[in-house]
Amino acid sequence: MTAIAELAAALAPGKVLTDPDVTDSYARDRTFLEPGKPLAVVLAETRDDVVAVLRWATGHRVPVVPRGAGTGLAGGATAVDGCVVLALHKMKAIRELSPADEIAVVEPGVITADLDRAAREHGLMYAPDPSSYEISTIGGNLATNAGGLRCVKYGVTRDSALGLEVVLADGRILNTGRRTMKGVTGYDLTGLFVGSEGTLGVITAATVRLRRAPSVYPATIAAEFTSLRDAAAAVAAIIAAGCQPSLLEMLDRATLKALDDWKNIGLEASTQAMLIAQADGADGPAVSERMSELCTANGASFVAVSSSQQEAEELIGIRRMGFQAVERLGKCLVEDVCVPRSALPYMIEKIEAIAVRHEVTITTAAHAGDGNLHPVFIFDQDLAEPPPNVWAAADEVFREALEMGGTLTGEHGVGLLKRRWLSMEAGPVSAEVHLGIKQLFDPLGILNPGKAV
Amino acid sequence: MTAIAELAAALAPGKVLTDPDVTDSYARDRTFLEPGKPLAVVLAETRDDVVAVLRWATGHRVPVVPRGAGTGLAGGATAVDGCVVLALHKMKAIRELSPADEIAVVEPGVITADLDRAAREHGLMYAPDPSSYEISTIGGNLATNAGGLRCVKYGVTRDSALGLEVVLADGRILNTGRRTMKGVTGYDLTGLFVGSEGTLGVITAATVRLRRAPSVYPATIAAEFTSLRDAAAAVAAIIAAGCQPSLLEMLDRATLKALDDWKNIGLEASTQAMLIAQADGADGPAVSERMSELCTANGASFVAVSSSQQEAEELIGIRRMGFQAVERLGKCLVEDVCVPRSALPYMIEKIEAIAVRHEVTITTAAHAGDGNLHPVFIFDQDLAEPPPNVWAAADEVFREALEMGGTLTGEHGVGLLKRRWLSMEAGPVSAEVHLGIKQLFDPLGILNPGKAV
Repeated sequence: MTAIAELAAALAPGKVLTDPDVTDSYARDRTFLEPGKPLAVVLAETRDDVVAVLRWATGHRVPVVPRGAGTGLAGGATAVDGCVVLALHKMKAIRELSPADEIAVVEPGVITADLDRAAREHGLMYAPDPSSYEISTIGGNLATNAGGLRCVKYGVTRDSALGLEVVLADGRILNTGRRTMKGVTGYDLTGLFVGSEGTLGVITAATVRLRRAPSVYPATIAAEFTSLRDAAAAVAAIIAAGCQPSLLEMLDRATLKALDDWKNIGLEASTQAMLIAQADGADGPAVSERMSELCTANGASFVAVSSSQQEAEELIGIRRMGFQAVERLGKCLVEDVCVPRSALPYMIEKIEAIAVRHEVTITTAAHAGDGNLHPVFIFDQDLAEPPPNVWAAADEVFREALEMGGTLTGEHGVGLLKRRWLSMEAGPVSAEVHLGIKQLFDPLGILNPGKAV
Repeated sequence: MTAIAELAAALAPGKVLTDPDVTDSYARDRTFLEPGKPLAVVLAETRDDVVAVLRWATGHRVPVVPRGAGTGLAGGATAVDGCVVLALHKMKAIRELSPADEIAVVEPGVITADLDRAAREHGLMYAPDPSSYEISTIGGNLATNAGGLRCVKYGVTRDSALGLEVVLADGRILNTGRRTMKGVTGYDLTGLFVGSEGTLGVITAATVRLRRAPSVYPATIAAEFTSLRDAAAAVAAIIAAGCQPSLLEMLDRATLKALDDWKNIGLEASTQAMLIAQADGADGPAVSERMSELCTANGASFVAVSSSQQEAEELIGIRRMGFQAVERLGKCLVEDVCVPRSALPYMIEKIEAIAVRHEVTITTAAHAGDGNLHPVFIFDQDLAEPPPNVWAAADEVFREALEMGGTLTGEHGVGLLKRRWLSMEAGPVSAEVHLGIKQLFDPLGILNPGKAV
């Protein structure tokens, strides 16, 4: 019996796909990266399926690339030659949702926004909301420690993860964490797996924390600026004034132009940047007013405040479509640098200068309240990978961010795409420790090889 | 040259203490546990001192017990025979405090409340506030992932730790994390060290997150109940109503009695429990009123709301003195179970029944909003360790908490005291993984041996 036949025999019929036309569609994420050729794709439906795949993979020394919805922007789920893609999107049960304990127990394939909607039926919410949350899965969010728009107030995915069920490389099942709000028994293994990009184990269930949803949908402020630097200065002023927004996003003209070309948002010729903000606390209206004032004081040419929930949601919707709009311009190399909040205006200036110097089109959207920027380097649709000037510009942006005390990746992960810069951020001792941990959990190197570390 | 002479030679004069009368005072934490005899105590003043101690300890295979202020309640800093106690309380510089980035960089010996006070000069706060925060150190808080009163709203120490400088067992220096609000480069090593109780490395600096301090000191509600179960029911009602308190504490009659005997707080004969609550958001007054109503609706015999900041702080002060008052009753075995919030009333009932059945005096204070209870088992001052009925009662409390989906320790750590129950909570796979991590970071087993894992 071939190895693949053995795998198929260990699983129910229909769960192992080997037709190259089919497997190729499971081999890619949302980056330009050309994937390797998978041996097979497994559509896992239960934890036992995952155990079977990993035992088999350990026995046959076959690499396993875990996969959620494939919405990643760093190549974390890109297939390698001869691997099995372990697709988890069919494990989509919300096993439990306890309003009294404000927790949910979910499988990895649950769509992020679906969990949020389920929680809202009980006056609660699932806070982490990557822009892709209508199509991303909780499992992928956990694997990358995804951020989102609301994390300026509510934290990232790690801040909502209480406990995990993880299948280790050899098929052992590890339970981490707890169902309680606090707990310090043992090492923080939950934190170790969150953000480990599938390199240490495969998450098959998670206990997540829900939070009280605001009782009223907050108004959305949209402020237009004639300079991106003014917009960044307004962000700094909003943070310095202690406004505590629940969302504070920035879009540059190139992103707005792409949105306008696609969706006709009525972009003014003079508008170079837009801030989109919300404050969802009990003092939301007062904070919104203060944020509006600070935008005006920092040179906003126009400030609009939504007058209905529908309008408020539409403005946020525009922000969420930003990357989709930009993807229409060409192939995209997406960065995800995060700098200390006060460095945001300087980082913006550096990116503008780098774009000019390297003659690269860079669009920038930012989770501005967190100092988390997404400069997107656009290159020709027909090229297989970025040309040298794009790589050079990307390299400079990373260096500048690190120079300011920032990081390579605020929320997307390292994946394949950022490994070449990893050693610039983490020193040699950190590299040794990372390799030690990887070796401990995955001595055969079968879990998502070549990614993250 | 003896090993100790070699150590002394590697450090500046006066940093190595060997007089048994002196070293004994550094050998204990706040538990009843009788410590071993240390070989020496090192008063570290710099990171290089820590490096020198760990290199020497690695060379000589000498156990090292790191120590903050010794306020721990689980035996995490209890000396073992022949160890060096590595005291870090002299490393107490706040190296940086950046209001613009809302972060501080601190050494481990900084007193928790001192950092909070320094932050408040800029309208910010350091949120984690264990009851002992006027005497505990940030290093100890990080090592145990300490909680506190405010963590019902602001999270535990881990939620405020962005990055660490750690000296590993062999003297290598590891930097983890970052200065930014978000970041996913590499594994979450910051989280791995926080709560690892000195078993993986010694923290010599931390970058911590500060938060915006409430602009007005919130009123304090104190509600008295004629039954502890009514008080627990009021807690459940407050959470269910979505009140989001910034502090929600519960004291039972035994704790109140100890406080009254010591500080004469005017305890009524009929009072069996007290809730102390605050809400520090913009809607604080409205939430406080709602919490008062819910206390009354759940049978409170008396509800007082503070009328001045002084009065509000005094009421919180009473809560913070709870353990000190209880320590006057005899020797204390302190538990720290945390249960899902909805299980709080059941857990309270179980503790009451266990106290009766085993004829043990148990006082209970709780960070009720988090489901985190501190039942304190009192035993005779003259006994070296708890008598069998106390161990049996403690054992039952742990079992009940685990049965309800709870955990052995919400915020104090495992230390020496809870190791005997560790396997009940974590399964065999978890134990294997923990030992693997311990082995990776501390192959010679010199770091705080016998603790936590």
